[in-house]
Amino acid sequence: MEAVKIALLGVGTVGGGVYKVLQQNSREIEMKVGARLEVVKVLERNLERTKELGIPDEIVTTDFSEITGDPEINIVVELVGGVEAARSFVKASLEAGKSVATANKDLIALYGQELFEAAHEHKVDLLFEASVGGGIPIIRPLKESLAANKIEQIIGIVNGTTNYMLTKMAQEGSDFAEVLAEAQAKGYAEADPTSDVEGYDAARKLAILASIGFNSRVTFPDVHVEGITKISKEDMAYAKELGYVVKLLAIAKESDGSIEARVHPAFLPTNHPLASVNDVFNAIFVRGDAVGDTMFYGRGAGELPTASAVAGDIMEAARNILHRDRGRHGCTCYDQKPIKDIGDTRSKYFVRLVVLDKPGVLASIASVFGNQDVSLNSVIQKRKIGEMAELVFVTHEVLDRNIQDSLAIIKAMPTVESVANLIRVEGDEF
Amino acid sequence: MEAVKIALLGVGTVGGGVYKVLQQNSREIEMKVGARLEVVKVLERNLERTKELGIPDEIVTTDFSEITGDPEINIVVELVGGVEAARSFVKASLEAGKSVATANKDLIALYGQELFEAAHEHKVDLLFEASVGGGIPIIRPLKESLAANKIEQIIGIVNGTTNYMLTKMAQEGSDFAEVLAEAQAKGYAEADPTSDVEGYDAARKLAILASIGFNSRVTFPDVHVEGITKISKEDMAYAKELGYVVKLLAIAKESDGSIEARVHPAFLPTNHPLASVNDVFNAIFVRGDAVGDTMFYGRGAGELPTASAVAGDIMEAARNILHRDRGRHGCTCYDQKPIKDIGDTRSKYFVRLVVLDKPGVLASIASVFGNQDVSLNSVIQKRKIGEMAELVFVTHEVLDRNIQDSLAIIKAMPTVESVANLIRVEGDEF
Repeated sequence: MEAVKIALLGVGTVGGGVYKVLQQNSREIEMKVGARLEVVKVLERNLERTKELGIPDEIVTTDFSEITGDPEINIVVELVGGVEAARSFVKASLEAGKSVATANKDLIALYGQELFEAAHEHKVDLLFEASVGGGIPIIRPLKESLAANKIEQIIGIVNGTTNYMLTKMAQEGSDFAEVLAEAQAKGYAEADPTSDVEGYDAARKLAILASIGFNSRVTFPDVHVEGITKISKEDMAYAKELGYVVKLLAIAKESDGSIEARVHPAFLPTNHPLASVNDVFNAIFVRGDAVGDTMFYGRGAGELPTASAVAGDIMEAARNILHRDRGRHGCTCYDQKPIKDIGDTRSKYFVRLVVLDKPGVLASIASVFGNQDVSLNSVIQKRKIGEMAELVFVTHEVLDRNIQDSLAIIKAMPTVESVANLIRVEGDEF
Repeated sequence: MEAVKIALLGVGTVGGGVYKVLQQNSREIEMKVGARLEVVKVLERNLERTKELGIPDEIVTTDFSEITGDPEINIVVELVGGVEAARSFVKASLEAGKSVATANKDLIALYGQELFEAAHEHKVDLLFEASVGGGIPIIRPLKESLAANKIEQIIGIVNGTTNYMLTKMAQEGSDFAEVLAEAQAKGYAEADPTSDVEGYDAARKLAILASIGFNSRVTFPDVHVEGITKISKEDMAYAKELGYVVKLLAIAKESDGSIEARVHPAFLPTNHPLASVNDVFNAIFVRGDAVGDTMFYGRGAGELPTASAVAGDIMEAARNILHRDRGRHGCTCYDQKPIKDIGDTRSKYFVRLVVLDKPGVLASIASVFGNQDVSLNSVIQKRKIGEMAELVFVTHEVLDRNIQDSLAIIKAMPTVESVANLIRVEGDEF
């Protein structure tokens, strides 16, 4: 039986996981692919790590040219992370006629086009299942199983750190700062949590999902991003009272030939399939014109779950090599659809205001909404804060531009102390 | 651009859906596959139906030999249902060198081996994504995305009719017979509901899932099956009180090199990902050694959802034809693992007994359980029914054989009126 030869770039958390999975399930993998998958080179500086994984010294190198220069290596697995080094490694590998598997969402979300073109030119595969949703099969199901659908919307919980934090806030009634400290202590959040809590990580993943779902290039800068740092325990309490949970959602929709892509916290009905996705779990909800509503759920990060996805890609790349069918799935961005301005998107909104507690205030605010075409679904007036009262509105579906204009006017009113929060309400009732 | 030529066998509900999807999304499909997919022949007797779908008369036939005899036809889509006619159509098509897509679970669960061998021999594809979970991508994710895993367990809610009924029973507190009548009136249950309510439909789907998950042939007769007809509103009420929902589960596990496959109603913790799968929705929960827990959710039946899966298979078959890579995924049953006797499987159990309400009865029953190695997790004694009392036990995980032996002894005790129900408790707490 033939062997397909593999180089691993980096054996940190995910790379080590890939090495372990290829070893521990080697028989299954061989039976399914029809060839042995042999790791013949590992690019890694940390020799303690390679020893710990039981990787033979003679296959460890710090010289990338040993990999591109070895014609026997068929598949390169990029797991060094970061962007610039990864980009040059991946590009050079593709140009050397090697198929590439990567878990690097930053790379794909930023340089996808360039890399897919290189893969196409050199008739090799560039696979990236692990870049979104960790171990959850989502890229390939979107590209293949659901390929006969016009995708209408994709809603993802694709960042485990923030989902863990929001779950804790909901369960414990604690505030953002407390939960962040706890998540950092547990290693679920990084010392600099910006990329997670500001939604950048989710936005990169959304760019990838939207590009595939709508067959048109969506990049990280195309995504409107708001993080979860302003979510307070008061917002959480209102969500619960109104029958919602709070989630950081990555939303992409196509309508009238244009694409909207946005990441922000949102209220979601408790009976929506995504509402019970808790802790570090991820899930991606996909609505297609034929399939209707589907959801893909699992661990969005971690050594072995991510390795599961990378190893699945390696097997696919190996199969394509054995069947002389490389470049089987190229880039599917055959359309060029415009990206909607966030002002042109439509949502329902939860608005929490602190206002002077006196007659006529509600009426004057309601009339501002009315003048801006913002129709209200419900109003709650309950909490008193000294001289002030808290006013909560939930709108019907309105244009983002109109709610923003309303709030600009409302903020300037002398009877209004502050706009405490503005949170979109998403997801149909189930 | 080339065209790939397709014959549809049957344009009933699903076949009509496939025709519609291929028409309405023809541009997307062509762009992704790299060729037009052209329906050139439709085997159908009902000309009203073909007219309604706008199928040109000249491509409609009742003579199957026109399809096998046409060398231009590359793909045959079997949607006639039933077993014997479908089997001969599929086999003849494979033997004529045509790839086949089918939604026919009965056919695959019963004659999978024979048909996969024919596909292998003639180097063509036999694809069947729609046979389990309707539109939900599950067959291909199991075969490809999760291929690097050793699958440990598969738990499915794979029958929409019974899930709808159990959801209604839970929500409305109504009894089985009422809900069945309602489901029949709505068209969710057939006039003869045996295949759904007795679990046979779910068992066929489980046979297919288990065969793929554990790489060893599991057929319908290998599956232990119990239906939902004995589930009462009392059981539902206890489930709720104890923090569970009642679902008809299709469970397959591998342990110690052997496979267990069973379909039965079960209590499932309310925080299990499958617990919030309601109404006619299906979901398949898969645990792999690398990926951990994943779940695939969506519509398990219906015209367009099922057509979505079939059309995805047609696209795959077309791609394989264009790439001269047919027979890419053969049968993955490369192992022959024994099937566990149901007596050798382990579960927790909910046991509901009606007993004489007098001292010593509980002690004597508990001692029977103890003697049979059935350790108890909790006991509830609450409802009185005249002279009788209802006793409810929840066991720890025990051998099925031991609980059955215990109940045989308990049933024969003069103080025991009846064993009102015995329901497994499945699924880890989340």
